[in-house]
Amino acid sequence: MTRAQLFDQIKQKSSYLCIGLDTDINKIPKHLLKEADPVFEFNKQIIDATHSYCVAYKPNIAFYEALGPRGWDSLQKTVEYIPKGLFTIADAKRGDIGNTSSLYAKAFFEQLNFDSVTVAPYMGEDSVKPFFYKDKWVILLAHTSNPGSSDFQLIESVVTGRKLYEEVINQSKQWATADQLMYVVGATQAEKMESIRALAPDHFFLVPGIGAQGGDLRMVSDAGMNKQCGLLVNAARSILYASAEKDFSQQAAAEARKVRDEMEKYLAELL
Amino acid sequence: MTRAQLFDQIKQKSSYLCIGLDTDINKIPKHLLKEADPVFEFNKQIIDATHSYCVAYKPNIAFYEALGPRGWDSLQKTVEYIPKGLFTIADAKRGDIGNTSSLYAKAFFEQLNFDSVTVAPYMGEDSVKPFFYKDKWVILLAHTSNPGSSDFQLIESVVTGRKLYEEVINQSKQWATADQLMYVVGATQAEKMESIRALAPDHFFLVPGIGAQGGDLRMVSDAGMNKQCGLLVNAARSILYASAEKDFSQQAAAEARKVRDEMEKYLAELL
Repeated sequence: MTRAQLFDQIKQKSSYLCIGLDTDINKIPKHLLKEADPVFEFNKQIIDATHSYCVAYKPNIAFYEALGPRGWDSLQKTVEYIPKGLFTIADAKRGDIGNTSSLYAKAFFEQLNFDSVTVAPYMGEDSVKPFFYKDKWVILLAHTSNPGSSDFQLIESVVTGRKLYEEVINQSKQWATADQLMYVVGATQAEKMESIRALAPDHFFLVPGIGAQGGDLRMVSDAGMNKQCGLLVNAARSILYASAEKDFSQQAAAEARKVRDEMEKYLAELL
Repeated sequence: MTRAQLFDQIKQKSSYLCIGLDTDINKIPKHLLKEADPVFEFNKQIIDATHSYCVAYKPNIAFYEALGPRGWDSLQKTVEYIPKGLFTIADAKRGDIGNTSSLYAKAFFEQLNFDSVTVAPYMGEDSVKPFFYKDKWVILLAHTSNPGSSDFQLIESVVTGRKLYEEVINQSKQWATADQLMYVVGATQAEKMESIRALAPDHFFLVPGIGAQGGDLRMVSDAGMNKQCGLLVNAARSILYASAEKDFSQQAAAEARKVRDEMEKYLAELL
């Protein structure tokens, strides 16, 4: 999917919502457990109910990997089930030496046909480059939203005066254009989001932290939006587990629609 | 496995060799392709031939993941096949927010029963802590051996004067003891290995880069060994692919034995 196609979809749906498929077999409604593949059945019904309110789905790979080979099967069926035109993100946070990263790229882009994969930058350029495929995207961790993000990401370089996450953005901008590279930006303060936007004016940002992780959609949108929207804002638990009963997919749809309605307002105001 | 048990095994075998099971279906001998599970069959024969010369096996998870669900099956059978007493490393380089890291830990420690997993530090303490399990090990990326290791790992903090990889070691030493935490140290220069050893005198280091990646076992051993050896030195391609013919496992054994013989010398000299 190209950046223009992603932006078209955002305009058509008035939404920049990404739904995180962090599907936890212990949290899904009990009546699904009698299905042959409860995780896929849950995802299928969530996708059916929400795909007109979001532009992307982001399966969190750990949730599938923790189930062993059958988790991998559920993941494969889920990716195949996502309607064409929606952007798919393998939230895998991989990154290894070149030949190994090539194999992870193969796993997510060829085996599973995702549009994008999240990648960790610690090992540097040659660990990231194998993920640059034609028509595919790298979503590189820059500033994450968890408490530990301050342990290393805020270390300031004695040479450049930039913090580690700024160095990651600054260097990686040389590796690929904004047509192949996005950043994970979990800013919870407006000034930080604004300064990151200044560093990478054209790139899409994948923003976690709306919903169960806390966060403020208004702030993120005000401070982070660019002329092509430039934002994919993720919500997972607040939508997936809006209800633990048989009405879970309707409740998920209502929750996704609520976020979409708010996004519609910001798109109209800011774009 | 405890640190004492690992050291006992090192003394018994006169070896601190770790064999990387980077099993590439395109590189294994052709006659194995007729087997139901060629990757497992290859690993099985490699393990049979080499387990008396090494103390650890390290499957590189990407090689299995790239094959989809059947790769996961081959991985599971491989881990189960490794003889008791040998240390097993899931070379996965995972790391995510707390609840997600918990699931990766579950995948590698509960589903697959590995002794240890390699973890990337970029997201900080709460992304690493879920991997600290009773009787299991975290092997944290500190200084890797690939060209891109200099992109971010060498950034020097304006506050502490330490480089990023030194910060990683220094902070993470507070998270767990040397009985649960090892470091990936891909030093190719003696001074660097010595300075890292000074920072973490008691910890085991997993050292990649012997064999196909280049590196110098004498230097690594001289500069890195501590009183409990403190080193696991990995070799993969040089052993796995010593021959592409029917004698591949004998050739692998010969190669592993050669490394072991050199290690025996250093253990006698340095311990």
